[in-house]
Amino acid sequence: MALVVHKYGGTSVANTERISAIADKVLLARRADDRVVVVVSAMSGETNRLMGLAHAISEQPSPRELDVLLSTGEQSTIALLCMALAERGVVARSYTGAQVRILTDTMHNKARIVDIDTTRLKADLASGKVVVVAGFQGVDEDGNITTLGRGGSDTTAVALAAALKADECRIYTDVDGVYTTDPRVVPAARRMDRLTYEEMLEMASLGAKVLQIRSVEFASKYNVPLRVLSSFEEGEGTLISGEDESMEQALISGVAFNRDEAQVTVQGVPDQPGIAFGILGPVADANIEVDMIIQNVGADGSTDFTFTVHRNDFDKAMGILRSTGNKLGARKVEGNAEIVKVSLVGVGMRSHAGIASKTFEVLAQESINIHMISTSEIKISVVIDEKYLELAVRALHKEFELEQATRVVC
Amino acid sequence: MALVVHKYGGTSVANTERISAIADKVLLARRADDRVVVVVSAMSGETNRLMGLAHAISEQPSPRELDVLLSTGEQSTIALLCMALAERGVVARSYTGAQVRILTDTMHNKARIVDIDTTRLKADLASGKVVVVAGFQGVDEDGNITTLGRGGSDTTAVALAAALKADECRIYTDVDGVYTTDPRVVPAARRMDRLTYEEMLEMASLGAKVLQIRSVEFASKYNVPLRVLSSFEEGEGTLISGEDESMEQALISGVAFNRDEAQVTVQGVPDQPGIAFGILGPVADANIEVDMIIQNVGADGSTDFTFTVHRNDFDKAMGILRSTGNKLGARKVEGNAEIVKVSLVGVGMRSHAGIASKTFEVLAQESINIHMISTSEIKISVVIDEKYLELAVRALHKEFELEQATRVVC
Repeated sequence: MALVVHKYGGTSVANTERISAIADKVLLARRADDRVVVVVSAMSGETNRLMGLAHAISEQPSPRELDVLLSTGEQSTIALLCMALAERGVVARSYTGAQVRILTDTMHNKARIVDIDTTRLKADLASGKVVVVAGFQGVDEDGNITTLGRGGSDTTAVALAAALKADECRIYTDVDGVYTTDPRVVPAARRMDRLTYEEMLEMASLGAKVLQIRSVEFASKYNVPLRVLSSFEEGEGTLISGEDESMEQALISGVAFNRDEAQVTVQGVPDQPGIAFGILGPVADANIEVDMIIQNVGADGSTDFTFTVHRNDFDKAMGILRSTGNKLGARKVEGNAEIVKVSLVGVGMRSHAGIASKTFEVLAQESINIHMISTSEIKISVVIDEKYLELAVRALHKEFELEQATRVVC
Repeated sequence: MALVVHKYGGTSVANTERISAIADKVLLARRADDRVVVVVSAMSGETNRLMGLAHAISEQPSPRELDVLLSTGEQSTIALLCMALAERGVVARSYTGAQVRILTDTMHNKARIVDIDTTRLKADLASGKVVVVAGFQGVDEDGNITTLGRGGSDTTAVALAAALKADECRIYTDVDGVYTTDPRVVPAARRMDRLTYEEMLEMASLGAKVLQIRSVEFASKYNVPLRVLSSFEEGEGTLISGEDESMEQALISGVAFNRDEAQVTVQGVPDQPGIAFGILGPVADANIEVDMIIQNVGADGSTDFTFTVHRNDFDKAMGILRSTGNKLGARKVEGNAEIVKVSLVGVGMRSHAGIASKTFEVLAQESINIHMISTSEIKISVVIDEKYLELAVRALHKEFELEQATRVVC
């Protein structure tokens, strides 16, 4: 008798019809004799509606009270889902984060889970009840309501699966799994059956936004098998788990990309200790997140320094750099907001040489100039002009035969 | 430094503008150096919206889950009000029923308050914070969310005032106090400055629906001074409190009436023990609430039995009575759905004879036939034809000089 955590969010709980459809899915799981814990988000649109109310009252609403307000979203969904389950003869019981006692720190709006009390949930499961838990929320030591921040329902599901030692955590979404790349760019993109946590982390952070990064980190840390699947269609989805020695390992799993990048270059700064901090310190102080950072070997005692930021932060970053560049004696500060990042991800490349040069060869054949290169153990990222995005992704997808399910053993 | 409980419900928290206006009122109270506890209801329309969602999923939603769902209504309001207070520089803290620990029994949808833990509220008040509590809700011993039923926010406010030994509990509504009768019927109707709990209970149960009956009972039990006043206009409102020996006591406080009555008469049933139960038992079993009950002295071994019910229950009650009347050997079962009840209320009449005969005289002068009469220590109720309602109320209001503030000492 398997213990399975289901998570339904966003469009899967868009309205009462969808919530009733989820109840049907849970009924099927119960008939398969699974013990089921369901984690749900707010009905789609609800969080925005509540935010609208808060902002009608205050430009910067109190973080504590915002959590009290936003947590009502999931609270409504758990109640409605339990009603729908009762209609189907399934005995279910709803829990808010506070009722479970999902203990978090006190960082309102972006709290982190510290501990989960599973006593009541285990008792309910043992007596055959379905347990329905509000995602995205918890409670601090003083009983204040906290939220984990947007998308935190995935994290709730994984944390519950870890705490209950569940056999699987199923994240139901509006896509039927994780793809080798965006099917809108490459129609031949293929749904992957399996993926490692590491690969998923690289894919997710690079723009394949199926799962929240934090939930994958959590799953990896506690080795919770995670399955992404569609709440609208049948199918096995994509299983994300730890590496399995016996399993065939693909050389490249997928091609991820990120359209929202912009690049800032500081040319001719003195090549001396502290220069990186001198440039990035003020950027970090302005709460601008920096993605890729490249510093090349300097010549003539000076060096060039380049980094990428989210395109929304580009103007702000350029403003800061013009000021600090001056102080640091830079020759020039340049920017480019029409670039994108394309990344190949795959644990297989770790033990396989030549992937990088092959990547550069493919791009060269298509006459695509590379602005920046950055590599990690299981990823190669390049920054190129935005206009070449589709061309580059298609060429790489084809070259590494990602449309084929046959996996290369390495 | 007075400790005052404010309660705002319904139209007073209709939208974010109204919530901001309440924050202004609380700010003024703080400036007057009051320690303030605010109890709020759900924004108007919200409870109906949530009920609509529940009924879209289930005809008879699970009572436990309905409480989880409905309690989100007040939870949103407390958060929004605290945000609005913060905007005005007032340090406030919101509490759900569970967070205060308003302990109730486990009767979902109509729970009763068992105990209130005032520890955290007192600490907040001592440190100068305004405390904002969600009305209408509590938590049972096992941590399940409960609701007190519709209108229960008044009860929450009074119970908090009792537990905190507050100096006054102010119920802000859309009227500026309790009137001698409905001003739509008698334009000269006057707002009363004071009223006893007993009088208010008789007024409320008779149709002057300003306050929830249960909250008045609660206030009476714990001797909490209760003030009804407008959340839209300035004014002193009406103070409802215990009887004060030294205070001038009006003979008659007001004329209440109820349009929604219907009358059922069973004629010629055997005048023997058990007949009242034989008639009313099946009515109670059908969940029909009975208001007035009259049985007259019988003659020739038979008697007539009359009672009133809510007009919505009239057809159902008649159906039941036709069947039981037959079994009991009744000569005839008659009904009249075009009657109303008019009541004079006043603690003064307790020690003053002749009020009843004066009442009947006034009605006789207007040629109004009386169908039923029922009296208590502080009330005289008559059932008359619906068409005479306005005439009767105006005549009685005038005869007992209720438009005049001068009170008769008795």
